[in-house]
Amino acid sequence: MSEARRRRRPRSAGKPVDEILATTLNLPQYTIATPEQAEKIHEVSLRILSEAGIAFYDEVALATLRTAGASVDDEQVVRFDPEMVEEALAQAPVSFVHTGRDSVRAVTYGADNIVLAPVAGPPYVMDATDGRRPGTYADLVNFVKLANATPYLQQQGTEICVTSDIPFHERALDINYAHIRWGTKPMMGHYPVGICAEDSVAMARIVHGADRVATEHFLLGVINVSSPRRLDDRMLGTIRAYAGNNQAVVLTPFILAGAMGPASILGTVAQANAEVLGALVYTQLVNPGTPCIYGPFLATIDLQDGSPVFGSAESLLAQALCGQMARRYDMPFRAAGTYASSKLPDMQAGIEAVMAMLPSILARPNFVLHAAGWLENGLTTSYEKFAMDLELCGVLLALAQGVSWEEDEWALDAILDEVPPGGHHLGTQHTLGRYRTAFHRTPLFDHESFAQWEVAGAHDSTTRAGRAWRGLLESYEDPGLDEAIDAQLQDFMERRRREIDPAEFQ
Amino acid sequence: MSEARRRRRPRSAGKPVDEILATTLNLPQYTIATPEQAEKIHEVSLRILSEAGIAFYDEVALATLRTAGASVDDEQVVRFDPEMVEEALAQAPVSFVHTGRDSVRAVTYGADNIVLAPVAGPPYVMDATDGRRPGTYADLVNFVKLANATPYLQQQGTEICVTSDIPFHERALDINYAHIRWGTKPMMGHYPVGICAEDSVAMARIVHGADRVATEHFLLGVINVSSPRRLDDRMLGTIRAYAGNNQAVVLTPFILAGAMGPASILGTVAQANAEVLGALVYTQLVNPGTPCIYGPFLATIDLQDGSPVFGSAESLLAQALCGQMARRYDMPFRAAGTYASSKLPDMQAGIEAVMAMLPSILARPNFVLHAAGWLENGLTTSYEKFAMDLELCGVLLALAQGVSWEEDEWALDAILDEVPPGGHHLGTQHTLGRYRTAFHRTPLFDHESFAQWEVAGAHDSTTRAGRAWRGLLESYEDPGLDEAIDAQLQDFMERRRREIDPAEFQ
Repeated sequence: MSEARRRRRPRSAGKPVDEILATTLNLPQYTIATPEQAEKIHEVSLRILSEAGIAFYDEVALATLRTAGASVDDEQVVRFDPEMVEEALAQAPVSFVHTGRDSVRAVTYGADNIVLAPVAGPPYVMDATDGRRPGTYADLVNFVKLANATPYLQQQGTEICVTSDIPFHERALDINYAHIRWGTKPMMGHYPVGICAEDSVAMARIVHGADRVATEHFLLGVINVSSPRRLDDRMLGTIRAYAGNNQAVVLTPFILAGAMGPASILGTVAQANAEVLGALVYTQLVNPGTPCIYGPFLATIDLQDGSPVFGSAESLLAQALCGQMARRYDMPFRAAGTYASSKLPDMQAGIEAVMAMLPSILARPNFVLHAAGWLENGLTTSYEKFAMDLELCGVLLALAQGVSWEEDEWALDAILDEVPPGGHHLGTQHTLGRYRTAFHRTPLFDHESFAQWEVAGAHDSTTRAGRAWRGLLESYEDPGLDEAIDAQLQDFMERRRREIDPAEFQ
Repeated sequence: MSEARRRRRPRSAGKPVDEILATTLNLPQYTIATPEQAEKIHEVSLRILSEAGIAFYDEVALATLRTAGASVDDEQVVRFDPEMVEEALAQAPVSFVHTGRDSVRAVTYGADNIVLAPVAGPPYVMDATDGRRPGTYADLVNFVKLANATPYLQQQGTEICVTSDIPFHERALDINYAHIRWGTKPMMGHYPVGICAEDSVAMARIVHGADRVATEHFLLGVINVSSPRRLDDRMLGTIRAYAGNNQAVVLTPFILAGAMGPASILGTVAQANAEVLGALVYTQLVNPGTPCIYGPFLATIDLQDGSPVFGSAESLLAQALCGQMARRYDMPFRAAGTYASSKLPDMQAGIEAVMAMLPSILARPNFVLHAAGWLENGLTTSYEKFAMDLELCGVLLALAQGVSWEEDEWALDAILDEVPPGGHHLGTQHTLGRYRTAFHRTPLFDHESFAQWEVAGAHDSTTRAGRAWRGLLESYEDPGLDEAIDAQLQDFMERRRREIDPAEFQ
């Protein structure tokens, strides 16, 4: 790491010790490629960037890239020299701080920090009582509150569900307002196109002041590369709005391997890696030093019927390789959340969720979007799955803590002197001294005897999860919002509702 | 590895190439301890063995251990010198072959081989139609057939459910017969006490001939150490029956950490490791060269209500350390199956199953017992969970294959020349050449669109799993059984039903 990059390391995010501990990665990264193999991925990616290139469907971006020395052909395809890539990599910070309304809840992406955020984007919501229906603003507010009430998400995300009861062109305003009004953890803003991202920045300025927005990061946008090898004008506009205003981005090739990428692990990883690097070059040209997370979204398709498959062996092997590439580049890494194809929060959904997200933790991600709520290929935000996923996130965060090698952990007094053969450790000094903290607890999961479970109503996990999310929602405490800021936000939104031309979203 | 041990490597099990590939571990082991830390675990274990010792509640075993030079105190506690442990480690084979009626289906434990077997021991069975009820012989036969019909289990296990309709003292005979009659994969025999294990050996002699039983391994018994630090007369009798007759054993401290072991990862691992080594010493004294699998069963308890917890972060970290110890000792390694506390095959069961078994695969196990069917803390064998677990096992075996680094995997012709920006890989030469094999398929999991799923009946995974296990059972083909052998088995069982004294099981 160069001295220049080292200097870009941010100061500590200033969280209380226990919250830092809870989101620290102490587990070693699971590596499946040798350094030579990782180098080969890098080399093949550079070849893809220099020979095949990435299409940038936006004249502003093409002008910037041309000026910087990239080759641009007649079909808007940009080819990059390895030097441009190396330069961009040297400019991207190795970690950065993301702040919300409550600066104590600020988070750091990079190094040994992990940040979990809820699902983003589903048009539907579902709960066991009312079934599946289009998401509404009220649902979004519920989920913002749940994301703030749980200890297991450190960031409150973006469009946790679509707000179908709000006109399309006004949604960014209301999504941002819901996050500002009801949440104090870091938020992402809403950024489907450049003008929405600009409004997100404007609202952040109202809340935090223009000076702070110019020097701190309050928003984080996911830039989807429309794989293979394509960035459209919407995403390029979002890059300019966020990066151009000192906000952070996640560079996310979205690849269902076999469709948007080759039907192979290495081909998919090489393509994804090239796409991240191509997007990184443009982002660093817009504003050198913009915080960028290395964040491919990788799944596979069923090659015989074309349907998306989450938690497949091939996708998690590909992700492990991407984790190694992110580490090679010393970039913060984003990995998979609790993805599922299942239409219900059933056993399949549980299998899929863990198959997708447990390998993420072993790849040492700094950011996990879609960590809670994802159902039906990402088309539904399930209240019950949200609650079950949160309990899973708790276990995974405990796992991320790794093994403590403190001397007391050996419990030798108990083993050698206190407990006879066939005895038990329940009452040893060692156990009594740590029974509240030694093992992470999962009260939502049923660990009772069959008889206890039957007497309690013989509920399945969906029913218990229904009680859990309602209980969490009740426990939520309104943080309030400064009246002057609220008034400014209302004025801004009212003006923008009149100004925004729905045609810009066609 | 000494020359003596190297010579003990078995010849190839002679399976066809595709079946070997399907059960080969190509993934690197996930290691979380440094070599120095693993050495510390070894040293602490030796200290436990020499200072605290292991109780052997059986005079035959104590005599053998005393003769071999171990110190035996008045409370039947045996203390071991490090030299005895090293000697036993040098005698245990690094891998071995386990053969069933169809020698083509023989499996190897050790090195790069993984063997999955169904759940063992639940008193109840459950299916979605008839609910939970005591297991019967008919259920056991069903599960033996399912284990033989699936491509995802390589071994057919033992008491897949309890046969409550058979008198307790006769069960070993019928369990063995069910496995012999209906299965051709390797079986484990039934071995709750020494006389049952002796009968299992006797029945193996009838099927395979005494000569082959003297030189090959047809049975595999799990030796539960009654943790902490205790081997009872039943298990010691089983060791003598199996090891003494050239059959293999799994050395399994059964530890719910916080109760049978300390409330810490390191303390639990040190104790488990010491218990494996203590059991190993006795097994190698009974018959030097007996194949032994290093196989602790590790879970945790909820330290505030005492209930068992499966798939906890702490248990999977402890298992990862045990995997490293097994590798240090160059012993075959057994790891966790699809454990669950849940009472139903619901989302909790799915989460628990993967949280327990996916980390197993990354620890490079050679044997996974309880890979399918486990529900309700191991008290119920669920038909539906069996089917869902099998589909999960398929994904995990695909995962175990790791990444192929063949040149063709880069798909560079497709990426560079065939697919334009925004195009797709569905029709490339690369994809067309591999669409049947590139990605492992999971037809039991629903990957359809919501509309397709709704038209098809809107079934949850339990309903689909019900169809799956019934379909698998229908696909089962009776392998038949030689009439002369069958008659000998019937004679043997008839005689033993008269001879066995139920009092021996009190």
